[in-house]
Amino acid sequence: MNERPVGTVESDGTTVLRTSKEDVMSGNQGVLGNQASSASSDEILRKAAQIIGAEEADIPCPIPQPFLDHIKGHEDVVQIPMALLPKLAHEIREKIHASVKVTGGHLASNLGVTELSIALHRVFDFRKDRLIMDVGHQVYPHKMLTGRAGRFHTLRQADGLAGFPDHREDPVYDLFHTSHAGMATSMTLGMAIAEHRRGLKNHHIALVGDGAMTCGATFEALNHGGHIHEDMLVIFNDNGCSISANVGALSSTCSKIRKTGIFKRAKDFGREVLEKMPYGKNAERIAEQMLGVASHLTHSPGAIFMDLGFRYYGPVDGHDFESLHEWLEEMKSIKGPKLLHVVTHKGRGLQWAEEDPINWHGAKPYEVQNGTAVIKKSSKPAPVDYCNVVSDTILKRAKADKNIVAITAAMAEGTTLSKVRSELPDQFIDVGICEQHATALAAAMRKGGVNAVACIYSSFLQRAVDQLFHEVSLQDGIPITICMDRAGLCGDDGATANGVFDLAYMRAFPHFVLMAPKDGVETEAMVNWAIDSDKPCFIRTPKEPSALAMTKEFKPLELGKGEIVRQGEGQVAFLAYGAMVVRCMQAAEKLEKEHGIKATVANARFCKPLDTELVAQLLDGHQQVFTAEDHQLQNGFGTAVLEACNDLSLDTRKITRLGIPDLYVYHGKRDWQLAQVGLDCDGIVASVLKKVKK
Amino acid sequence: MNERPVGTVESDGTTVLRTSKEDVMSGNQGVLGNQASSASSDEILRKAAQIIGAEEADIPCPIPQPFLDHIKGHEDVVQIPMALLPKLAHEIREKIHASVKVTGGHLASNLGVTELSIALHRVFDFRKDRLIMDVGHQVYPHKMLTGRAGRFHTLRQADGLAGFPDHREDPVYDLFHTSHAGMATSMTLGMAIAEHRRGLKNHHIALVGDGAMTCGATFEALNHGGHIHEDMLVIFNDNGCSISANVGALSSTCSKIRKTGIFKRAKDFGREVLEKMPYGKNAERIAEQMLGVASHLTHSPGAIFMDLGFRYYGPVDGHDFESLHEWLEEMKSIKGPKLLHVVTHKGRGLQWAEEDPINWHGAKPYEVQNGTAVIKKSSKPAPVDYCNVVSDTILKRAKADKNIVAITAAMAEGTTLSKVRSELPDQFIDVGICEQHATALAAAMRKGGVNAVACIYSSFLQRAVDQLFHEVSLQDGIPITICMDRAGLCGDDGATANGVFDLAYMRAFPHFVLMAPKDGVETEAMVNWAIDSDKPCFIRTPKEPSALAMTKEFKPLELGKGEIVRQGEGQVAFLAYGAMVVRCMQAAEKLEKEHGIKATVANARFCKPLDTELVAQLLDGHQQVFTAEDHQLQNGFGTAVLEACNDLSLDTRKITRLGIPDLYVYHGKRDWQLAQVGLDCDGIVASVLKKVKK
Repeated sequence: MNERPVGTVESDGTTVLRTSKEDVMSGNQGVLGNQASSASSDEILRKAAQIIGAEEADIPCPIPQPFLDHIKGHEDVVQIPMALLPKLAHEIREKIHASVKVTGGHLASNLGVTELSIALHRVFDFRKDRLIMDVGHQVYPHKMLTGRAGRFHTLRQADGLAGFPDHREDPVYDLFHTSHAGMATSMTLGMAIAEHRRGLKNHHIALVGDGAMTCGATFEALNHGGHIHEDMLVIFNDNGCSISANVGALSSTCSKIRKTGIFKRAKDFGREVLEKMPYGKNAERIAEQMLGVASHLTHSPGAIFMDLGFRYYGPVDGHDFESLHEWLEEMKSIKGPKLLHVVTHKGRGLQWAEEDPINWHGAKPYEVQNGTAVIKKSSKPAPVDYCNVVSDTILKRAKADKNIVAITAAMAEGTTLSKVRSELPDQFIDVGICEQHATALAAAMRKGGVNAVACIYSSFLQRAVDQLFHEVSLQDGIPITICMDRAGLCGDDGATANGVFDLAYMRAFPHFVLMAPKDGVETEAMVNWAIDSDKPCFIRTPKEPSALAMTKEFKPLELGKGEIVRQGEGQVAFLAYGAMVVRCMQAAEKLEKEHGIKATVANARFCKPLDTELVAQLLDGHQQVFTAEDHQLQNGFGTAVLEACNDLSLDTRKITRLGIPDLYVYHGKRDWQLAQVGLDCDGIVASVLKKVKK
Repeated sequence: MNERPVGTVESDGTTVLRTSKEDVMSGNQGVLGNQASSASSDEILRKAAQIIGAEEADIPCPIPQPFLDHIKGHEDVVQIPMALLPKLAHEIREKIHASVKVTGGHLASNLGVTELSIALHRVFDFRKDRLIMDVGHQVYPHKMLTGRAGRFHTLRQADGLAGFPDHREDPVYDLFHTSHAGMATSMTLGMAIAEHRRGLKNHHIALVGDGAMTCGATFEALNHGGHIHEDMLVIFNDNGCSISANVGALSSTCSKIRKTGIFKRAKDFGREVLEKMPYGKNAERIAEQMLGVASHLTHSPGAIFMDLGFRYYGPVDGHDFESLHEWLEEMKSIKGPKLLHVVTHKGRGLQWAEEDPINWHGAKPYEVQNGTAVIKKSSKPAPVDYCNVVSDTILKRAKADKNIVAITAAMAEGTTLSKVRSELPDQFIDVGICEQHATALAAAMRKGGVNAVACIYSSFLQRAVDQLFHEVSLQDGIPITICMDRAGLCGDDGATANGVFDLAYMRAFPHFVLMAPKDGVETEAMVNWAIDSDKPCFIRTPKEPSALAMTKEFKPLELGKGEIVRQGEGQVAFLAYGAMVVRCMQAAEKLEKEHGIKATVANARFCKPLDTELVAQLLDGHQQVFTAEDHQLQNGFGTAVLEACNDLSLDTRKITRLGIPDLYVYHGKRDWQLAQVGLDCDGIVASVLKKVKK
């Protein structure tokens, strides 16, 4: 498959959609597959029907077109004849394209699993069978096939469809709310054990991408499932690139087998051997061994799965409906733990996405111009975001010091550390989706004399809490630097992506320095300070543009010292952490303009060690003190302030803690999310007035 | 190896020590190897020398005996001739035995790696080479070989030697403070990357047991190390049983290869092929493939490691000095990532430990009676501990309800869930050292209709923080039950085992119910209550005997409600959590007797949701309120009380938080540890007097 060109640009600049039966879909209406602008969709479909040996008119189909208007699940999908499935796939791709170009979202991964999703819904009935997707950024076709196509334009918008499986949206088809990688195999195994115990005869399927295969958690679940010989199917969706370029030895192994181009059919030699053997325990065992040896001889990655107790099948062309059908039906009849290796093309059907699946993994809203996609830009120059300030600073430091190495866990693009990869490949390490390993590795490298700086999303760093304790803090605090990107509410990706627990899980660890900058200038200063520090430092930055320098002069950083950025009068003071400083400033201005209240605004800079003198000073000089943080209120920044007051015997009744209450904030724009919990300017003002008016 | 008897009992009841050259060590002085009580150690040694073709008198050795009095590292170990190494091994085993029988400690694992440790110190010099042990409960021989034999009797005692590698004890030989499994490969890889970057030519070795091989984190590091082709050696110490009986498909694979009894020498066919090939890139690659195929054909577990990019060698007899030597020297000369599979016998040399390595993994102080070991018992009947109350309750409930399943992560003995395994094997699951998977599995099983109850040490549950968030809390709070054993300060195992962060990392998660019982009766009630609850429940219990029922009548549990267990007067109140209730009661009695202060004692029962009415009532009725917890003060129970007061606008200046300050408490008896941080009766009284006298 890889040898073939992955798409062609036509003279008019439009693109060609490909499937394994390449001609079928070429030249359809719309941007997708518009091979010849003159060709109507009917002509194309007729051509498709010819290719598979039938005239379109001859294909009876009880479901009218467009199919997606009528499909609610398995019982509908099975009614569409095989010959018309490419048409359904095309509808799905059109809808993905139409929605994502407006809302943004996961593009390439969803385009890649369109045929696979259709085949799964034909062969299995997920009202009783179970499908759990790893990560879940391949869920769009599944959502459309389960009655949610009509709402697809609301994707990732507040109160609209979630970008990931979401049990609140559909408790049957979306069993779990997901997006953290590597857990689908565990969850599928757990459901299988439980439901089989209860006597159900249903099927349990984990759909796992090659990125999630690098997670230790996947290994743990395979090793257990293989051992207890549970009936379950892992579909290994191998698109060879996960989110970032894929890493890890296993990935190389898989790459080798993809390059051999062998796409085995169900009747291939391995299975034939098995079927021809006289039935019996020994025979089965011998056949299985032969299968194993054969798979090793052909360089199959199956060896590793077989050592973990799984039967290995494939690889299968993930865009060939007949092959998928045949294999999935075959899987239904095989007992025990089994893995089906399916090769798909990320971005399938959109030339630019196929050619650059990494940058079109998580797409921002885009436009199609001259047959290629362009990210929509506003007329104003894009403001620099915190993320880029962090990576620019790391890059600058790394250029000056060979001894600095940047580490990512499969998020080179997301964290923009990709610029270090491009410019200083020797000073860049991508470990795959392995936050546990990334954190331990950083600590060990620092012990070995190299200055390790990791960029990890706050939410994903939750995977490494034990390593933060055991490999970093307990070793008298090894001075690594971790820049926690996406700290706070994160917008469209929803509750799983919000990084709102980091202060809770980290502040209790001895030796740690926790800090958050108020603006771009301070971000740069903090990254530099952390790199030079002799303590483990954690910098939390939000997913938003960084405000320009908020203060005329930059007051140099000093461990455990905050600063007052706006001196008010004695009525109200804010003690804000990170991204809340700018919002408290806005609130202070509004309070002054509209209510005549001149509020002081202090920038805490450090949550640990906390500037207790500043806390005492604010309490001493003001009637009301408001702490503000983009974090849960339980065990958050305000909590640290309360503890400090308690240690100093200060009265905390003057303090009001603003932050996220004990609930989840779901997907929507970050500003919308902040407003939901009163952390926008208006919300903060309202909280102040409520107290001051008392 | 496995076919041979694992030890023999002599007529006088003493035992025989075995190595691969079995006769060498039989009949030495002391309890170990006292085959014939008349045989002197000199005779035995002479016999040993005869076996290896030399008279003892002929073996020149610059190091006098006992060797351990003179050995400080590699430079000394290399001076001992091969023929006398069994003598050194014997000395080490004697010392392990002599110390552990008094202090308790890890017995079987250390006996198993004695020869391997000696061989490692002969071939490598760990002043410049790096040895990182996974878990570290196999570190005793290493400590003795690096100048710490003289202090070995202080093992696990306050200010004595730690039971695990401890960088405070020796920053060169014990690089890291360890005990959580699965991280040695990451740490070794990190050190190797860093030091090789810096131009050092040293060797990096991870010593990893088969238990740690089930950890996802090990997989992550192997997959990365194999991919980047880093020079490093993983020694896979395969003793076939880890801590509990080993589980997982990989374990079965290894078991198969052990049973074939093939112990390859360095010159075996695989290597021969490699050596005879004309040198060249292609030749090397072909040879490597042949090695791979050969290892697959012989059912080697090597396939999985090779797919992860590691060269696989072995298995090697881990008690045969010559073989170990030959292989370790060979490893030195091979570039890239490589894994040496060494088979050892846990408990080696002590018959009872060899025969029951699981129960002699972590040994309590014991006596040898009639040639077998007996745990020392006090004259009083052993009090029931919290751990057993928990497992007894689970067992009772599981007997009555087939739908209840108990889950452990390789700690069946430690958590005493082994009784469920014995009595109800169908309602028991051991997933291996995989807390991530255990937690997700429990959640998925509950979703699948089975009531899952897991017992996991508080400290080890840190591995599953992200799963607690993502797989449990975010799913609207799947109602699993996790009994957190070893919560609070844990005694002899030291800082890595202390479970003093669980409130910090869990209280911020929505839907969670966090509770801790004051005594045995309440423990049983809480486990029952949690099993029946529709919320995720976490019960923290300490490693200590459970007090008998502390109150005459048991007040039934009610969500978020505490109780007053001692009504005092208005001066002092305690609000205690879990294990601190009994200590506050003791303190209250002492305060009354010795100082005339009649203190109130309240039992919080729940940390989340907290009984805010009780908090208000205590504050209202007393001049001073002391919160008490066996947890860090940062983000702890007292913190929850401060937050509640802040929400209710109550003055917190009356509150004093007693708990663990922002530091690590190292090994020693639990009572000693508690006293260190003022959480024993006297410490609590002192804190009260300090405040009251003000």
